[in-house]
Amino acid sequence: MIAIVGVGLIGASFALAVRKAGYSGRIVGVSSPAAIQAGIERGAIDEDLPLAQAAARADLVYLAQPIERILATIEEIDQYVRPGTLITDAGSTKRAIVERATQYIRRGRFVGGHPMAGKESRGAESADADLFRGRPYVLTSADAEIEAWIAKIGARIVRMDAEEHDRRVAAVSHLPQLLSTTLALMLDDSAAVAGPAALDMTRLALSSYDIWRDILATNRTQIDGALARYIEKLQTIRAELPDLHEDFARALKAAQRLRESS
Amino acid sequence: MIAIVGVGLIGASFALAVRKAGYSGRIVGVSSPAAIQAGIERGAIDEDLPLAQAAARADLVYLAQPIERILATIEEIDQYVRPGTLITDAGSTKRAIVERATQYIRRGRFVGGHPMAGKESRGAESADADLFRGRPYVLTSADAEIEAWIAKIGARIVRMDAEEHDRRVAAVSHLPQLLSTTLALMLDDSAAVAGPAALDMTRLALSSYDIWRDILATNRTQIDGALARYIEKLQTIRAELPDLHEDFARALKAAQRLRESS
Repeated sequence: MIAIVGVGLIGASFALAVRKAGYSGRIVGVSSPAAIQAGIERGAIDEDLPLAQAAARADLVYLAQPIERILATIEEIDQYVRPGTLITDAGSTKRAIVERATQYIRRGRFVGGHPMAGKESRGAESADADLFRGRPYVLTSADAEIEAWIAKIGARIVRMDAEEHDRRVAAVSHLPQLLSTTLALMLDDSAAVAGPAALDMTRLALSSYDIWRDILATNRTQIDGALARYIEKLQTIRAELPDLHEDFARALKAAQRLRESS
Repeated sequence: MIAIVGVGLIGASFALAVRKAGYSGRIVGVSSPAAIQAGIERGAIDEDLPLAQAAARADLVYLAQPIERILATIEEIDQYVRPGTLITDAGSTKRAIVERATQYIRRGRFVGGHPMAGKESRGAESADADLFRGRPYVLTSADAEIEAWIAKIGARIVRMDAEEHDRRVAAVSHLPQLLSTTLALMLDDSAAVAGPAALDMTRLALSSYDIWRDILATNRTQIDGALARYIEKLQTIRAELPDLHEDFARALKAAQRLRESS
């Protein structure tokens, strides 16, 4: 049996993906009544159970809640699981979660995870069995069982410890968000002449703060570091004006490489 | 007769747009043989002429070359035109061009222009009669004749002096480009975990330097100022970490307003 704790886009997509890969056991959800209903309607979960009962019967516990809720679940869940039960999560920062698990998970076996996948629409209604296919999926430690699951759903396993993960996502994900937010704040009075570049670079500023509250709170140090490095690079660009020929050439190649590998 | 000097995407689109709006006079091109051929094949221009002859017969001269070429044409063209001939340009910075025109255009009548429109593909092959429709079109001085042309092609006239224009586009167009270029330079080693945010924010970094060389050279001061203001805002965001609730809310509204007006 698999227990999906937090039946949103990621949790329900994981359930659909393992089903599609041939898993024939039961999949239960631990979530709000609305999320459970959406998950059942989408065909992602079979039924709902309270956390204690779901954890007691599960072979795999998949924590797909918001980060702060994952942290709280980790403090509670170990007492319920059978010894050796695999517990993993899909939170988008890893150090705080892995530290919490090291402290609280004794009977279970915890491996931190982060699927680098998503879409604009949220909730189990938008769940997609192919959401993880071909996408990077970070795992914070080696474990044959979780690696087999992740391989089954078609994701590309990337092994990385929690600290390294948080440093990297601070640069590739959290920094771009804050650059976009800051640009939108600055362009507030420039609407009359805004062209496609401004729209492109402020798209992320449309993101809801819901998700970002926990990310900022649990990855503050690395985000601060990424902002500092970015500001330093921007000062270099400023100093080099107006001849940025070399920078544009290197940036073009870097942007192409990002596209080839993703 | 209309003379299009520089038969690329913008020049050829302007020609197609005035044709569609009912202009039945001749449209001649002054450009490289390859551009002339593409412009004729696309139905944008009727024939080519050397600059001196095209300028001597034109009622409207439309300069749609790269900025440095526009600056050079402005130095040469005034001797050819009949007194009072309307000369305008489509360069994406305005102070250097308007200053050059003030110095050199005596017989003709110069009005600086900047259509805030474009597409990824370049050249007369990609020309589109509706390229300017609904888009802002900056004019640097009041002139009933050019305003009538711009209204005809369906663009939204925005009156703004050259200094104000360059300050604004430094923020809405040149700054976003440099933010994207700088991010691509920084993410060069992060390909393994790059997600949609990184791809979104490095799309502009794929731009060719061809266009940017002249923009950076002719708007250096305003771009430096925009970078300085942005860095200051980013330092504020850094200092406020991790609680960016207010900033995200204001940025969301600003990003929505940018979309409503463009």
